[in-house]
Amino acid sequence: MTSSLTDRVALEAGTTTVDQPLLAVLKGERRDPPPMWLMRQAGRYLPEYRALRAIKGGFLDMAYDPAAASEITLQPLKRFAFDGAILFSDILIVPHAIGQELTFVAGEGPRLAPPLSNASLEGLQPVLERLAPIWATVARVKAQLAPETTFLGFAGSPWTVATYMVAGQGSREQAEARSLAYQDPGKFAAIIARIEAITVDYLSGQVDAGVDAVQLFDSWAGSLAPAEFERWVIAPTARIVEAFRARHPDTPIIGFPKGAGGKLRAYAAETGVDAIGLDETVDPDWANRELPATLPVQGNLDPLALIAGGETLERAVKRILDAFSGRPHIFNLGHGIQQTTPIAHVERLVDLVKGAA
Amino acid sequence: MTSSLTDRVALEAGTTTVDQPLLAVLKGERRDPPPMWLMRQAGRYLPEYRALRAIKGGFLDMAYDPAAASEITLQPLKRFAFDGAILFSDILIVPHAIGQELTFVAGEGPRLAPPLSNASLEGLQPVLERLAPIWATVARVKAQLAPETTFLGFAGSPWTVATYMVAGQGSREQAEARSLAYQDPGKFAAIIARIEAITVDYLSGQVDAGVDAVQLFDSWAGSLAPAEFERWVIAPTARIVEAFRARHPDTPIIGFPKGAGGKLRAYAAETGVDAIGLDETVDPDWANRELPATLPVQGNLDPLALIAGGETLERAVKRILDAFSGRPHIFNLGHGIQQTTPIAHVERLVDLVKGAA
Repeated sequence: MTSSLTDRVALEAGTTTVDQPLLAVLKGERRDPPPMWLMRQAGRYLPEYRALRAIKGGFLDMAYDPAAASEITLQPLKRFAFDGAILFSDILIVPHAIGQELTFVAGEGPRLAPPLSNASLEGLQPVLERLAPIWATVARVKAQLAPETTFLGFAGSPWTVATYMVAGQGSREQAEARSLAYQDPGKFAAIIARIEAITVDYLSGQVDAGVDAVQLFDSWAGSLAPAEFERWVIAPTARIVEAFRARHPDTPIIGFPKGAGGKLRAYAAETGVDAIGLDETVDPDWANRELPATLPVQGNLDPLALIAGGETLERAVKRILDAFSGRPHIFNLGHGIQQTTPIAHVERLVDLVKGAA
Repeated sequence: MTSSLTDRVALEAGTTTVDQPLLAVLKGERRDPPPMWLMRQAGRYLPEYRALRAIKGGFLDMAYDPAAASEITLQPLKRFAFDGAILFSDILIVPHAIGQELTFVAGEGPRLAPPLSNASLEGLQPVLERLAPIWATVARVKAQLAPETTFLGFAGSPWTVATYMVAGQGSREQAEARSLAYQDPGKFAAIIARIEAITVDYLSGQVDAGVDAVQLFDSWAGSLAPAEFERWVIAPTARIVEAFRARHPDTPIIGFPKGAGGKLRAYAAETGVDAIGLDETVDPDWANRELPATLPVQGNLDPLALIAGGETLERAVKRILDAFSGRPHIFNLGHGIQQTTPIAHVERLVDLVKGAA
């Protein structure tokens, strides 16, 4: 890579003249070794996170406390040579701002009330000030982050957020949302449109406060039949990308349609995302053949291989690095890091990826 | 189609000179309209099934009662012009015969004890006579089935069966089995080998008792990383296909690797199955391009589209029929029919498929 390319990337980043390897890859460069971060890297596998949580209380209390959330966002960067920081927050902030009540039930997960399977969207009173503490967290993190570290904001995709808004909680195979989409597509389209609009504002506010790139998490993209996938995953994502890009043309968007499988090529071609996240079930060799050669990909180590460690981890990492050695690649897991992951295995993973040049 | 082809298919079927459209397609012919059956067609959406269950008691009691199980197998054939009958049984008969205790907890699903995450395979005493009532059911059904109806036997694939044997129950993302496979691959390989061996005997006994074809259900194929998919899905399936075919060279095997997504082509190429089942998340146009043109495919209507009915159902059916109009195709759902499915929608589906020639 020439130094003029480096300079151009640094210039485009706008806020720094220091090279950001992760941002460079998101803008289409190949780097060796690939930059890396881990989904849910700010989380429960870290003893310092568990310690803070024991003091601060519930998940939502921490997400809405810029001092706590910024500290948590920065925790993994103090331990590991990651190239990216991911905002500590939750995809359900958006439905909370749309006006559903949000609670986290210990051991059971989130609850949104009223569930839109029975309630009307029109009955919700938007509470947009619920977004403000998240933006404040971004500003706090940005002020403390090393300039070579790329700061990633995020939101849930409309489909995935809608699955929670409709069911009022996590749901088996997302049956409530899929059924509503079939049986009352008009109502479902209105829910998707509401999420889309606030998501563009929410991500835009994150950029204004300091993130360098954003990721759209579509955790439940895998449960949809193809026509529904086109209507409720691809089309809303494409509209968000278009609206976001009009406001922030230099800020890359990573799409992560978990479980999309054979529909990944259509997603990549039709949404306009700048980079695509691959879950751990995707064969990296297949994805490398299937996706456009210039499209940056992110992924896709199995979080359970990271827990296993040893030769299992080494083989899995090598397979991914080899498959993506000819294209822009950001090393990551294919899914969030799990609570039982040994810290030493994360350290080993960083060595494996960073020593692979 | 020429009549000599029809005769050859009927002759190969061995037990009848009547044409079986479903069997003909499994052997590589294209039929218009495509033959059809529905996964879980003998089940709780039928009032006559619920009535019998109210008398006979639990699921396992019925599966082990050849009179009840054969009646249930035949129930949908009395209502609908399906081309296939699927044996009423359960994939957990195999672990039960391997020696785990099997119970069905109302509202919670199956339990296998002891879970092999903590117990040794060597501690299990095989109880092979648990297979005999299933074979007796096959013989009873065969004696009553219309000769043009193809009778399908089945078993779970080793990977999917192992996920239950290891966890002792259904498990979130199959984490227990995936972890054991990473952390003690020797133990896990022994479990897979034990399932493989008994599955070949079990399916072979079903053929001897009267089934015309068999299906391997791999309900949890979708949760594995690619190297694990090759080792625990493709390789065991290929060994079963080889061993089964040596005994029954004229009996087709359908593989159904639910959730395989982008790994479907590798599964089709490397397992040697005669036909491949596609779940409802697979884009039929993509699958038609991705899979060998002569390979029969089965699927892949979304069960929720069948519940929705109306134009949603019509559009979804048409998309599938159009995509597979140039290859051997068996119309089916992409997943089992759901309990809340209206009978009238199943009748409408049969009309849509059968009227589409």
